[in-house]
Amino acid sequence: MEDALRNCGVDINRVGDAGAERRNVAAYLELHIEQGPVLENMQLPLGVVLGTKGVERHAIIFHGQEAHSGSTPMGVRRDALAAAAKLALEIRPIARRHPDAVATMGSLKTFPGIVTAVVGRCETTLDMRDLDAEVLASMLSEARAASERFATEEGCTVEWSKIWSIEPISFDSRLIEFCDEAVREAAGVSHRMPSGPLHDAAEVARTGIPTVMMFTQSLAGLSHNKAEDTRVDALKMAVQAFDRLARKTVNWLSAQKNKG
Amino acid sequence: MEDALRNCGVDINRVGDAGAERRNVAAYLELHIEQGPVLENMQLPLGVVLGTKGVERHAIIFHGQEAHSGSTPMGVRRDALAAAAKLALEIRPIARRHPDAVATMGSLKTFPGIVTAVVGRCETTLDMRDLDAEVLASMLSEARAASERFATEEGCTVEWSKIWSIEPISFDSRLIEFCDEAVREAAGVSHRMPSGPLHDAAEVARTGIPTVMMFTQSLAGLSHNKAEDTRVDALKMAVQAFDRLARKTVNWLSAQKNKG
Repeated sequence: MEDALRNCGVDINRVGDAGAERRNVAAYLELHIEQGPVLENMQLPLGVVLGTKGVERHAIIFHGQEAHSGSTPMGVRRDALAAAAKLALEIRPIARRHPDAVATMGSLKTFPGIVTAVVGRCETTLDMRDLDAEVLASMLSEARAASERFATEEGCTVEWSKIWSIEPISFDSRLIEFCDEAVREAAGVSHRMPSGPLHDAAEVARTGIPTVMMFTQSLAGLSHNKAEDTRVDALKMAVQAFDRLARKTVNWLSAQKNKG
Repeated sequence: MEDALRNCGVDINRVGDAGAERRNVAAYLELHIEQGPVLENMQLPLGVVLGTKGVERHAIIFHGQEAHSGSTPMGVRRDALAAAAKLALEIRPIARRHPDAVATMGSLKTFPGIVTAVVGRCETTLDMRDLDAEVLASMLSEARAASERFATEEGCTVEWSKIWSIEPISFDSRLIEFCDEAVREAAGVSHRMPSGPLHDAAEVARTGIPTVMMFTQSLAGLSHNKAEDTRVDALKMAVQAFDRLARKTVNWLSAQKNKG
């Protein structure tokens, strides 16, 4: 990696110096496609991003007892897939109790995973997100309690291990107001929303730099996909609104400097 | 394969001639371990097998919409895993409505199968078994209807394809009586039960040869596994009971021959 970086003109020993540039940063503004279906469903071209949701990402393994599908009566099975299936369904009401929360079981693997055997081990992943740290913590704890209840019901055990997590990151309240004004002036109507996906803006905001993001509508909510697209009129409006946001921000910073 | 068979002394062109031996077969008796937990749970060493269950084995694929786990609100998801999870749970009450029926989802695969994506495609397998052909057919049709209902509920579609099936095969009623007597004489108490696993006896019975099987208890219901075992006293009793069954069968055949 060191060689590869050097070929690109980066000296790894001086990589920490890059942070010195932060002293020249007064604010950070980011324009991005939504990557989701919310704005399109509301028939809005633009949105104001309140921050990026915190993420709890875990591997959850249910251990039951592999058994012959023909000779093992229903009543004595310890089916790891049944416990996992209950959790796959239960994370949905857990998330739906909160307006912007999401919970996803994206991967489920069965072992031995053959047509003639009751599943002895089921490996799953869970990804939960919300902008409110307390909501996220309570969702995680509800999911964990549910997994233990389902494991017990099915004669299984359950084991959790954290894959990765990040706290919710809220954007700057003053810049959120400017962004809201800019969107309203350009599009007539605005909508405030958290971002489920993470963005560069989240890392910048964590260093204390005033930050905000503006979203443009995505078509059909598709992202990281060849079919990802945004209407040209929404893009044009986004450029106008983003220009307004930049001007408002610069004016605010100048006024602050003059005060100082 | 032809060469390999020739090396074992088998001429593939004459393989059909093997059926000629059937004319010398008057009855077929098979002793086998149960491969399940039923006899051990009843504290019985031996059982009488009524026949082998019919099997319906199918591949079931749910098609939804792959989507970003962070940006896709719960309410607009078309989660193929959710539909499959509902079916994994629903096959259990479908089987439990019948005393000896079993239904198993042994394999479930998620695509793309990553922590950050709602499952767009979920591939599962279903194995259902019962000794009664009508029960088996009604279970299959209930499972199919349930899969379609769950697909609709989750905004998905579902696609079935048969992997394999076999009809239930009942053993000879006269030999079942002899086997029951033999088990009762050797062990004091008998229990009649269907076999979930298939056996050589099923293929023999299909050709019209009077057939029955006797089971010996399996420990912990384990089979096809290094831990597979049966108690020595149960094995001894099985040899005694099987000898009685063979004598009863030979006597019956002799009496029939004398009558003829």
